Amino acid sequence: MACRLTATEFISSGLTVEKYAVSLLDRIKSRDDAVQAWAYLDPEYVLAQARELDKIPRDKRGPLHGVPIGVKDTMYTKGMPTQHNSPIYENDAPVIDAGPVTILRNAGALILGKTTTTEFAAVFTGPKTRNPHDPNRTPGGSSSGSGAAVGDFQVPIALGTQTIGSVIRPGSYNGVFSFKATWGSISREGVKISSLILDTVGFFTRSIDDLQLLADVFKLSDDEEPGAFELKGARFAVCKTHVWPQAGRGTIDALDLAVRLLREHGAEVEELELPEDFSQITQWQRNILEGDGRVSFLPEYHLAKDKLDPLLIGFVESTTKPSKRDFSASFDSIASLRPKIDAIAGEYAAILTPSALDEAPEGISTTGSPAFCGMWTALHVPVVNIPGFAGSHGMPIGVSLVAPRYHDRHLLNVSRSVGKAFVAGGWKSAL
Amino acid sequence: MACRLTATEFISSGLTVEKYAVSLLDRIKSRDDAVQAWAYLDPEYVLAQARELDKIPRDKRGPLHGVPIGVKDTMYTKGMPTQHNSPIYENDAPVIDAGPVTILRNAGALILGKTTTTEFAAVFTGPKTRNPHDPNRTPGGSSSGSGAAVGDFQVPIALGTQTIGSVIRPGSYNGVFSFKATWGSISREGVKISSLILDTVGFFTRSIDDLQLLADVFKLSDDEEPGAFELKGARFAVCKTHVWPQAGRGTIDALDLAVRLLREHGAEVEELELPEDFSQITQWQRNILEGDGRVSFLPEYHLAKDKLDPLLIGFVESTTKPSKRDFSASFDSIASLRPKIDAIAGEYAAILTPSALDEAPEGISTTGSPAFCGMWTALHVPVVNIPGFAGSHGMPIGVSLVAPRYHDRHLLNVSRSVGKAFVAGGWKSAL
Repeated sequence: MACRLTATEFISSGLTVEKYAVSLLDRIKSRDDAVQAWAYLDPEYVLAQARELDKIPRDKRGPLHGVPIGVKDTMYTKGMPTQHNSPIYENDAPVIDAGPVTILRNAGALILGKTTTTEFAAVFTGPKTRNPHDPNRTPGGSSSGSGAAVGDFQVPIALGTQTIGSVIRPGSYNGVFSFKATWGSISREGVKISSLILDTVGFFTRSIDDLQLLADVFKLSDDEEPGAFELKGARFAVCKTHVWPQAGRGTIDALDLAVRLLREHGAEVEELELPEDFSQITQWQRNILEGDGRVSFLPEYHLAKDKLDPLLIGFVESTTKPSKRDFSASFDSIASLRPKIDAIAGEYAAILTPSALDEAPEGISTTGSPAFCGMWTALHVPVVNIPGFAGSHGMPIGVSLVAPRYHDRHLLNVSRSVGKAFVAGGWKSAL
Repeated sequence: MACRLTATEFISSGLTVEKYAVSLLDRIKSRDDAVQAWAYLDPEYVLAQARELDKIPRDKRGPLHGVPIGVKDTMYTKGMPTQHNSPIYENDAPVIDAGPVTILRNAGALILGKTTTTEFAAVFTGPKTRNPHDPNRTPGGSSSGSGAAVGDFQVPIALGTQTIGSVIRPGSYNGVFSFKATWGSISREGVKISSLILDTVGFFTRSIDDLQLLADVFKLSDDEEPGAFELKGARFAVCKTHVWPQAGRGTIDALDLAVRLLREHGAEVEELELPEDFSQITQWQRNILEGDGRVSFLPEYHLAKDKLDPLLIGFVESTTKPSKRDFSASFDSIASLRPKIDAIAGEYAAILTPSALDEAPEGISTTGSPAFCGMWTALHVPVVNIPGFAGSHGMPIGVSLVAPRYHDRHLLNVSRSVGKAFVAGGWKSAL
């Protein structure tokens, strides 16, 4: 079935854009009642775009020619509403593309539709979306629809954003690759702001090839172009972090098995304990989130306070928590750890660390805990979630790889080999 | 003439919104050929808004009821195009308000029109706008129209943004108050991104009262509410910075006189020499600007490279300058100096420092040097330009006051007293 192709496979398949799009639309039609990953999708508009793309002469086609992409509904898209899962922006449709959407569209991508999000990607109460592997479980958040749609073969690529753990966690819960690039390395023009210093654009795919494709289009580059990489002889760190006491059985076993698999492939894996300072990032990040939330949601508070989530109202109204002193100290303390993590991570091929507390929790009212992801987001380092492991209910669990800032290409390169090794991790999509 | 009222004066004047708006439109009509501060202005739309505002019952009026505001043309506005002084966005009109515009409109403001900017607020070649005090001189940039329109009594308040010196420098050149708030303290939603870590929203007014009014509406607050402030006995620092060798006669004399005036009012003023590190910020900031420019202008580069300024094309195409290593080191080094400047500035009522190299230079092809402003922008501290001094051609020159981060209210409070003292600085608008 065409809908199962990754973007890279589709590109080399010779299929028309229309055929591929029809296959995805059919998949969505049959699965949407169960998954509900889309905040907006107009099949007619999708087909019209597909037919236009098919008419473009071969020598004028972009590197993403015809590749359908789901866009998180906190990013502006021409020709579709952008609603942020907020009644304030119901049916709101500014006629602009967000920066990343402009780049993708100009590379030939077909913007398939808008994927669901928690309100402004800033709260933990979920949208309607369900985990494609078990409709009684959350797909995670805030990039809920992006994770679920890619995991369910409804689209090969989707865009997300991560402020604490909104790309890596749904990647783990839905059994897909997800990649949060180095902070600031991808345009956030036209992407709803939650925190200037934390928000990061990310991607969901079902293959590392597709992440590489996106890294090309977004011109991510390291100082040193990565060469051939082999697990054999490579040195990894496994970092359980200060969050480890919260880890559930599934994550404990997954990390254990991940280390074992790397060693079986000839890699060295050593335990890494970060200096004590790093454990404070969780609180510092909360201070930043609350302080920035006051600024970021003041416009909506003015527009329609009655339509705003209580969490966000709390941010705006709590003028003294955190104090400005605590806010600045948190901001500066995290900043001081960024060169330190670069130096530490630079000693290894990558740092292995959990993506989530466990498999996706039951229920869809909350989107699960981002506890393991937050620190890396605040540190601005690139992170890839590699799927492959299974929880005690057979749900997918991923493990994260982390590299120093602006080592995105290196990290993808390492992730390719690691991803292959983790195929033996025990989880395979039943979809 | 009503057009000469500040916003605060208008609010207590009892004038209808329509009368005030008509007076401003008349002023613009008579002066627009000479100044050309507007990228978009539709008098009919302005009058229609004014009449609607006049209909609002007194008890339902906002704190900025009827206050006309000019909006820099890099910020989205409903009902008006947003063109960024770029042919790529000619007549482009997304139907949204930027965050600051939402807040102002909901406080009752009348959005008068869009003020001119350099291309994307990111280049140094000027728009058509001329300095109202001498049409043969630049009004500065990138917030060219905002500075010129407020200086020329065409609008009492205008919005700007500063990435290096785009609010403080035009404040100085046009003889008005301008205020760059602490980085991150005012929503940047819907404001074109040049650099995430540098871009800052700011305001142009002709009085400190008006800046206070804006600080209220944007809910700026310090940890400690500032009490009464008196120059007598207050301790100031004067900081010439590493840029001092570039200062022209006008700035040298203005700073000298500023110190003298403060002392005459009983303040202590001591010379402050910053640690050597601070002098490197100029280069570090350039690295950040170039690195971030690569990301920020990639969407437009894809859309229409042929319509993009060569400087911005250079940012995108120069993938190795700065190296990622230099970029991160610059980012981290500046971050490490932020708590240091807070501690240093906290020792004083404020730091006195130049706003510009001299009075506005001749010609309108370039917008003058932001050299004195850049360091403070990168350090995220609030800055107010206080007008009052004159250059050798009788053009206005301002002096900056600087406080620690999140001491915006304190700084405005101090600026009120300093502003009064600087009235004796020798410059008075002849307009």
